[in-house]
Amino acid sequence: MLEQLKEEVLQANLQLVEHGLVKYTWGNASAIDRESGLFVIKPSGVDYATMKPGDMVVVDLEGNVVEGKLKPSSDTPTHAVLYKHYEKIGGIVHTHSTWATIWAQAGLDVPAMGTTHADTFHGSIPCARFLTPKEIERGYETETGNVIIETFEERGLDILAVPGVLLKGHGPFTWGKDVRSAVMHSVVLEEISKMNFFTQELNHFAKELPKHILDKHYYRKHGKNAYYGQN
Amino acid sequence: MLEQLKEEVLQANLQLVEHGLVKYTWGNASAIDRESGLFVIKPSGVDYATMKPGDMVVVDLEGNVVEGKLKPSSDTPTHAVLYKHYEKIGGIVHTHSTWATIWAQAGLDVPAMGTTHADTFHGSIPCARFLTPKEIERGYETETGNVIIETFEERGLDILAVPGVLLKGHGPFTWGKDVRSAVMHSVVLEEISKMNFFTQELNHFAKELPKHILDKHYYRKHGKNAYYGQN
Amino acid sequence: MLEQLKEEVLQANLQLVEHGLVKYTWGNASAIDRESGLFVIKPSGVDYATMKPGDMVVVDLEGNVVEGKLKPSSDTPTHAVLYKHYEKIGGIVHTHSTWATIWAQAGLDVPAMGTTHADTFHGSIPCARFLTPKEIERGYETETGNVIIETFEERGLDILAVPGVLLKGHGPFTWGKDVRSAVMHSVVLEEISKMNFFTQELNHFAKELPKHILDKHYYRKHGKNAYYGQN
Amino acid sequence: MLEQLKEEVLQANLQLVEHGLVKYTWGNASAIDRESGLFVIKPSGVDYATMKPGDMVVVDLEGNVVEGKLKPSSDTPTHAVLYKHYEKIGGIVHTHSTWATIWAQAGLDVPAMGTTHADTFHGSIPCARFLTPKEIERGYETETGNVIIETFEERGLDILAVPGVLLKGHGPFTWGKDVRSAVMHSVVLEEISKMNFFTQELNHFAKELPKHILDKHYYRKHGKNAYYGQN
Repeated sequence: MLEQLKEEVLQANLQLVEHGLVKYTWGNASAIDRESGLFVIKPSGVDYATMKPGDMVVVDLEGNVVEGKLKPSSDTPTHAVLYKHYEKIGGIVHTHSTWATIWAQAGLDVPAMGTTHADTFHGSIPCARFLTPKEIERGYETETGNVIIETFEERGLDILAVPGVLLKGHGPFTWGKDVRSAVMHSVVLEEISKMNFFTQELNHFAKELPKHILDKHYYRKHGKNAYYGQN
Repeated sequence: MLEQLKEEVLQANLQLVEHGLVKYTWGNASAIDRESGLFVIKPSGVDYATMKPGDMVVVDLEGNVVEGKLKPSSDTPTHAVLYKHYEKIGGIVHTHSTWATIWAQAGLDVPAMGTTHADTFHGSIPCARFLTPKEIERGYETETGNVIIETFEERGLDILAVPGVLLKGHGPFTWGKDVRSAVMHSVVLEEISKMNFFTQELNHFAKELPKHILDKHYYRKHGKNAYYGQN
Repeated sequence: MLEQLKEEVLQANLQLVEHGLVKYTWGNASAIDRESGLFVIKPSGVDYATMKPGDMVVVDLEGNVVEGKLKPSSDTPTHAVLYKHYEKIGGIVHTHSTWATIWAQAGLDVPAMGTTHADTFHGSIPCARFLTPKEIERGYETETGNVIIETFEERGLDILAVPGVLLKGHGPFTWGKDVRSAVMHSVVLEEISKMNFFTQELNHFAKELPKHILDKHYYRKHGKNAYYGQN
Repeated sequence: MLEQLKEEVLQANLQLVEHGLVKYTWGNASAIDRESGLFVIKPSGVDYATMKPGDMVVVDLEGNVVEGKLKPSSDTPTHAVLYKHYEKIGGIVHTHSTWATIWAQAGLDVPAMGTTHADTFHGSIPCARFLTPKEIERGYETETGNVIIETFEERGLDILAVPGVLLKGHGPFTWGKDVRSAVMHSVVLEEISKMNFFTQELNHFAKELPKHILDKHYYRKHGKNAYYGQN
């Protein structure tokens, strides 16, 4: 069942380790098959060194396990909420990568200070609020998904133009049209979190990228006039 | 004698190097066999590249060598004091890992700024005081153990809920139910020491995690209502 | 066609990854054959893991593809402008390496704070201005090349004595007599960007290197009285 | 001639790269044979990847080449001056390692903030002054050695108790009873340069280690009452 997707999801989880974004089991990646409405996610707390494609868990959009011997990631309900609400998303990644987590712990949006940012994210990456005690009681992981949606709706953001978010005091979620791009967005987010932090340390008066440069770089790689890459 | 434990202790010491927490011979890991009341610890100043299980030293709770051709770690009396006082501890690790040592040198507790912290440590990681000249005369390593105990008793901390400490001007000790978890706690402590440092640099007004988030994350992984992992 | 140069350019691109200056496809290296007036550059957005010498693209000084199945780097016009204007340049490299990009995002020149800098760059590395909206409309990549030239001419800098520049809000370009030295200049620029940043953090009163030390180190390695190395 | 020492010197140079202290050819290690009064040093500007024992150069205490096809390191006269003046030194290392160089560029001594420092260096690591234009004219590398001696004599330091120095605006030299320990001292210096920098950033009121802790740690590993290690 969804064997190809299981392989992709396993590879995505391993790439998070290779890129230095995940230690031990602190992260998870998933990918959805839109035809069947089922998604594949890594099991909870299983050592990456021994993880096999068959360990991946198949889950429906209500978060119920459809196939798999192991318990899915404890963050599965967050993934389910996002896949259900945003039909354009094909893959989701969660990490505690160092620099993105630093911004999350500081409770600040990552501003667009350079073209490395603008090549992937069309503007600031928002930091979502803390959950309230009542929301936590109601269901921590489901409400985490709802707070992400709330953040994007309140700010009127396009989910694919800004493919990531910081959870206050926690860490980043990223997504994309597939799980491979969701991983890449985690790598980019980590790098720009580091660069934008030190840019502000170096020059407290440094400003966000001017709009015309932000747009130029973003649209060089995205949309119908894109001319980067081989397509 | 305790061959299995020797292998575990050797592996733990090697993992400290792999995780980048130890250079040369600046660290030590041990594990106890509660039945016999003996613990296994790495030898002092021996190159990690050539260390074998048979080089591990077996020691009793008074710090006397029971088996082994080599001298045990110079920090052996500190391990002995902790094993003797805290029956729940199964493994102990000491390193000079960069970021935890920075907090130790600054003489500050590591505050709980995020969920990476809360997943493992239920609150701040305390920084113990300097030893006095008299304590050093009396026995530096034994008194180091006593100062750790004093720190935890004065603050009323549960030794397994906060499985680590900083020694002022020196570096961290961590522990756990076994040596494998003691190593993991050293890895976590190093990572949160780095993240929490830069969080404060980025936002001087950043606060510790609210109590309801701290508790949620800690109890998601610990205690009878834990639901993280496969158990 | 230019098979030797294709191999050199491929190796240069791979070295950027090995030196940690490039993630994914965020960088490009090229080298020129001055006899034919043609240069070889990496293709746009192609995975470094599978890139072969035959994937390199041959381009003339107007930026037209002369040979190659793939589209050249989107930054090709910048390379063309520089090769055309500066006859001494044999190779060019562009990256988004972390620390050089931090200075670029801060919009500041990298001052000569030490001999690691002076061994390669004879003075500050300039940060070029943002392009205007009109320049972007006219041709972003071509005008980027023109702004580099403007920066060096306004300041009266020798292109080989200061073999690199920062593009404001973007990242570094470096060059050299061949592509191998252009890569080395990127490595040096990254390292001194990091060191000079933290030097200023450590001591806000730290000054640039005195002229007699700057000259001594630069001319120890360059010019007719150089005595470093085997030649 | 001195084949064993050539192998040791080669290995020392390679270890500098493995420990991340040297990029390209920016460093050099040497070792002396006190019986013959000759020392072995790496050649100038030769790629570490292809360097062989036979490439090492044998030099006398006046800096004259005694054996070797290649030119010795351009810093050879500095090594010669130090070997000649300090008979206890058996090996010398020079690098531009990142954090030690940052302190050198800031023109500041590295204060003893922790036991990682005290285990190896018995007090602050001094930063030597800039050479004057006249000294540079007289012979840059020889005078560099003389300024190191001046620094240690003015401060009344024991060359083996503080086995390293920073050259202002340049980088560190370390030494030891043999080249292996000189390498280790470079590794320690780099690590404490990083830790002591961030300690001060974290707590501007952080103080140097109290004298009784500094002494305890230093003499735990050095002198006739040392009890660290297997001897």
